[in-house]
Amino acid sequence: MNTPTRWLPAWLAGYRREQLPGDLTAGLIVTVMLIPQSLAYALLAGLPPEVGLYASILPLLAYAALGSSMTLAVGPVAVASLMTASALQPLAAAGSPEYAALAVTLALLSGLMLLAFGLLRLGFLAHLLSHPVISGFITGSALLIAIGQARHLLGVSSGGGNAVEQLISLVRALPDTRPVTAAIGLGAVAALVLARRTLGQRLAGKLAPMAVVVLATAATAFWQLDRSVGVRIVGEVPAGLPALGLTLPGWSETLALLAPALLISLVGFVESVSVAQSLALRRRERIQPDRELLGLGAANLASALSGGYPVTGGFARSVVNFSAGARTPLAGVVSAALMAVVLAALTGWFHYLPHAVLAATIVVAVWNLIDLQALREAWHYDRADALALLATAAGVLLLGVEAGILAGVALSLGVLVWRASRPHMAVIGRVPGTEHFRNVERHQVETRPGLLALRVDENLFFANMPRVEERIAAALAADASVQRVLLVCSGVNQIDTTALGVLSDLEARLAEQGIRLQLAEVKGPVMDRLRDTPLGQRLRNRVFLSTHEAFVAT
Amino acid sequence: MNTPTRWLPAWLAGYRREQLPGDLTAGLIVTVMLIPQSLAYALLAGLPPEVGLYASILPLLAYAALGSSMTLAVGPVAVASLMTASALQPLAAAGSPEYAALAVTLALLSGLMLLAFGLLRLGFLAHLLSHPVISGFITGSALLIAIGQARHLLGVSSGGGNAVEQLISLVRALPDTRPVTAAIGLGAVAALVLARRTLGQRLAGKLAPMAVVVLATAATAFWQLDRSVGVRIVGEVPAGLPALGLTLPGWSETLALLAPALLISLVGFVESVSVAQSLALRRRERIQPDRELLGLGAANLASALSGGYPVTGGFARSVVNFSAGARTPLAGVVSAALMAVVLAALTGWFHYLPHAVLAATIVVAVWNLIDLQALREAWHYDRADALALLATAAGVLLLGVEAGILAGVALSLGVLVWRASRPHMAVIGRVPGTEHFRNVERHQVETRPGLLALRVDENLFFANMPRVEERIAAALAADASVQRVLLVCSGVNQIDTTALGVLSDLEARLAEQGIRLQLAEVKGPVMDRLRDTPLGQRLRNRVFLSTHEAFVAT
Repeated sequence: MNTPTRWLPAWLAGYRREQLPGDLTAGLIVTVMLIPQSLAYALLAGLPPEVGLYASILPLLAYAALGSSMTLAVGPVAVASLMTASALQPLAAAGSPEYAALAVTLALLSGLMLLAFGLLRLGFLAHLLSHPVISGFITGSALLIAIGQARHLLGVSSGGGNAVEQLISLVRALPDTRPVTAAIGLGAVAALVLARRTLGQRLAGKLAPMAVVVLATAATAFWQLDRSVGVRIVGEVPAGLPALGLTLPGWSETLALLAPALLISLVGFVESVSVAQSLALRRRERIQPDRELLGLGAANLASALSGGYPVTGGFARSVVNFSAGARTPLAGVVSAALMAVVLAALTGWFHYLPHAVLAATIVVAVWNLIDLQALREAWHYDRADALALLATAAGVLLLGVEAGILAGVALSLGVLVWRASRPHMAVIGRVPGTEHFRNVERHQVETRPGLLALRVDENLFFANMPRVEERIAAALAADASVQRVLLVCSGVNQIDTTALGVLSDLEARLAEQGIRLQLAEVKGPVMDRLRDTPLGQRLRNRVFLSTHEAFVAT
Repeated sequence: MNTPTRWLPAWLAGYRREQLPGDLTAGLIVTVMLIPQSLAYALLAGLPPEVGLYASILPLLAYAALGSSMTLAVGPVAVASLMTASALQPLAAAGSPEYAALAVTLALLSGLMLLAFGLLRLGFLAHLLSHPVISGFITGSALLIAIGQARHLLGVSSGGGNAVEQLISLVRALPDTRPVTAAIGLGAVAALVLARRTLGQRLAGKLAPMAVVVLATAATAFWQLDRSVGVRIVGEVPAGLPALGLTLPGWSETLALLAPALLISLVGFVESVSVAQSLALRRRERIQPDRELLGLGAANLASALSGGYPVTGGFARSVVNFSAGARTPLAGVVSAALMAVVLAALTGWFHYLPHAVLAATIVVAVWNLIDLQALREAWHYDRADALALLATAAGVLLLGVEAGILAGVALSLGVLVWRASRPHMAVIGRVPGTEHFRNVERHQVETRPGLLALRVDENLFFANMPRVEERIAAALAADASVQRVLLVCSGVNQIDTTALGVLSDLEARLAEQGIRLQLAEVKGPVMDRLRDTPLGQRLRNRVFLSTHEAFVAT
C-alpha cells in the first residue's frame, strides 16, 4: 500500500464524486452559522472576536484529517467558551494579551491531553460522567451563559459572580437599560426564535441568524447607532490569517491550567462523541472513541498553533451539517476555506455588528441546550439520579463550572456507593416443578426446613457487609431450626477484602453454633479468587454450582 | 417497671456477686496500664500530662452508663491523640492554655457528633471506611507516632513536618543525642519488649510498664538526673480532681474543628466497635453499634466537661481488661475511681518521671498497631485493596492524618467504581440435563442457534455501559445468524438512568437490524422500576422469569 493514498484519511482516499454536492452545500451553510457564533463565543470566552475566527479554520482541517465522524462540526462552542472564561478570569484581565496567551495555552494543554488519552486508549475516562451529570452540567452552563449575556442584550453594565449575584446585579442595573440596544438585542432574540419556530429545519431557518446579523449591522452602520445612542459594536477586527507559532507556556501557568484543561477536554469529548454517535447511528456509520480523541486533540493543537482557544464538536452546527447533506469531513474543509476567505478579506464587515446581536445569537443557541426532558425522565425513573442532575446544575450556577461538575461527579459516585450499601436481599425458595428459585415474599415457592437460602443482590463489599450480617442474624433469631445458611451469590460479582474478612468471621461464628455456611452460584471470577483464601479452603465442599444442588443436598 | 433499677444500666441492675472479683482485678490491672499511657498520650497530643489523667475518669463512668460492650476500656488512645495534635497544631501553640481549650472543644464536638449519630442511628456512616483503609491508617499513624517519639527517646530536639522531614531532621540531630536520656529511653524500650516477649499475657507482663516507670522515676530522682545530665522530666503535675465546667467555643474555632472532630469520631468509633465486637464474640455477647455511638459520645462529652480531650476505646487496654477477667463495665468504674485517687493524692510521684520513658511506652504500644499481616492478606487476595492500604499509610506519613484518611476513602471508592466499570461478562449456555446456565468458555454447555445469551455480572450503570455495548457488537459481528440478544440480568441489581438510556438506544438499533432484545432473570426491584419506562413498555413480552424459559422460547 505504498501509494500516495496511504497517508490520506480513508474518507478522502475513497472520495466519490456524488458526495461532493452535499459536502459543498453543508460546508457553506455551516459557515453562515459559524461566522456569528465564532465571534460571539470568543466574546463569551473573554477574547477578541478574531480569536473565534482563528479557532474556526485550522482546527476544522485537523479534525478532518484524524477524526472518525463524517459529520461532526468542530470549532468554538458555548460551554467550552464559558469554561475558558471561568478558567482564565482568575489569572488575567479579559481582553489583555496575557489572557489571550493563556487561552492558547489552555488549547495546547487540552490538545496534548486529548492526544495522550487517544494514544493510551483512555477514552473510557469519559465514562466517569453519567448522563444526568452531563445533562445537569450543560443545562446549568446554558442558564449561566444566558444570564451572563442578558447585560449585553440590554446594554447595561452589571457585575459578575455566580448566577444569583449576576441576577441581582442585573436587576439593580435595569434602570440603566439603553433603549436602542435593548430593542436591537431583544428584537434579534425574537426574530431568531420566530425564525426557528416557523421555518424550522428549512434552509431559510438556517440562514436566519446571518440575516439578523446583516440587518442589524446595516442599520447600526447607517444610523451610526454606536455614536448617536451608544450601541456597543464589535469595532475593528484585524484582517488577515492568523500567524502560526507557539510560545511554550511557563510552569506556573501550565500547572494552574491543568485541571481546567482536563475538564474542558473531558466535557468536550463526551459531548462530541455523543453528538457524533447519534448522527452516525442514523446512517449506520461507526464512531471510534479513540480516533475521536485524536481528532479533537489535533483540532485543539491546531487551534493553539493559530492563536485560537479550546474547540470541540458543537451540537447545533453538527446537526445542521448533517441535515444539510454533509457526507464526509470535506464539508468541514469547505467551511475552513470559507472562514479563511472571511478572515482575509471581509473582517471590515463586522465593524458595526452590535454586541447585542451576538448576545442574542448566544442566548438562542444555548437555550436549546437546556434539557428539562432529561430531568423529567430521571425524576420519574430514579430520584437519586435526578438529584445528581439538579445538584450539578445548581453547582454550576452557584459555585461555577468546575466546582459544579466536580460536585456532580462526586455525587454520582456517592449515589452509587450509597445504593450498593443498602442491598436488596431475598430469602428464596424453589418455584414448584422447576429448578428455579425466587423470593419467598414475591412468589409461590417451596422452602426446606433447616435451610436458610439468602440471595444478596449486590457485590459484597465494605459498605454493605454489616447489613448482610444483620439480615442473617435476624433470620436466625426468627427461626431456631436453621442448620444451614446458604448464601446465593448469583448477584455477587465481587467480594472485596473487607467482605472476605467479615464472611470468614461469620463462618467461624456460625460453626460455633453448629450452623454450616454454604455458598451457591458463585461466579467463576469470584470463585477463582476465593479458592486460595483460608475461607475458601474451609468452604471447599460447601460451594454448590446451583442453588438447586444446594437445595437437594443436606 | 417503675423501680429504681429502671434507670440503671442493664449490667448494673442485674449485677451478680460472682462477677465482682474479675471486675476488681481487671479494673486494677487496667489502671496500672492506664497511668503511664494517659500521661504519655497527653504529651503526644501536645497537652499537659494531667489532661491525660482527667480524660481517664469521667469518660469511663459515662461509657459504663451508656455503652453496650462489657469489656471495652475507654480513655486516651494513641491514634486519637495524634489526630488531636494534628488538628490543633495549626491553630495554637502546643502547651498553651488556648491549645488545651481547643482540645476540650474537640472532645465536645466529637461527643455531640457521636451522640447525634447514635440518636439518628447513623452508625452505618462508619462503613465508609473499608478494612484496608482503616488498617493502612492505623499502621501509618503508628509509624508516624513512633518516628515522632524518637527524639524524646534520644533527648534531642528535632523538627516536625511529615514523616520524611522528621526523619531527616532526626538524623541531623543524632550527634546531639544525650547519652543518659538515650540509655533510659532505649533501655525502657528494651525492657518493655523483653517483658512482652518473655512474660506475654501473664500478670507480670502487664505490670512491666509500671515497673519500668517506677524504676526509671526512682533512678532519676535519686541521682537528680534532670539537673545533672539534663534528662527531661514530667515535672509538676497539678494535684486534685478536674474542675467541672464548659466554656462554649466560638464560631470560628467550631468551624475549624468540625472536620477533624468528624474524622476522630468516625475513626474512634470504627476502632472501638471492631475491638468490642471481637471481644464480645468470644463470649457470645452482642454489641449494638448505635448504643456504642451513645456510649462513646457521652464519654467524650464527659471528657470535655472535665477538661480532657477526645477519648475512645483502646485496643490494647480492652484486650488486657478482657483477659484480666472483666465481666461488666464495673471494671471501668473501678479504674475511674483508682485514677481519681491517683489524681487527688499521688501526682507528686510523677515529678521525676522521664519523658524518655513515656516515649518508650508510646513506641512499644503503637508498634503493635502496625499490621503487616493485613497488608499481606490483602496483597494476596486483592491487589487493589492492598494498594488502597499502602496509599492510605503513605498519605498519613507524607500528607498527615486527615489527608491520609481522605485519600484512602477516595481511593477505595475509586477502586469500587473502576472495578464495576470493567464487568465480567459471559456468553452462557445450558448445562445438559438441567435448567442451569453457565459460561460457554468454562463449562460443557448447550447453546441454541440464533440466540446470543449474555450474562453481565455487574450492575448496569454509566461507567460500564460502553463495554456492554462493545461486547454485544463484537458478538454480533462474529455471528451473523443471531436473531435474539438475551441479556441475563441475574447479576444486575441496579440499572441507572444512563444505562436505561443506552439500553433503550440499543433496543431500537437492534430492532432496525431485525434482532430482538430480550431480558431474563430481571430481579424484582429492578423490574419494578423498569416496568413503567418506555423501554419497559416495549419489552413487555420479552422479559422472561428464567434463562431457561427464554432458552426454550423462540
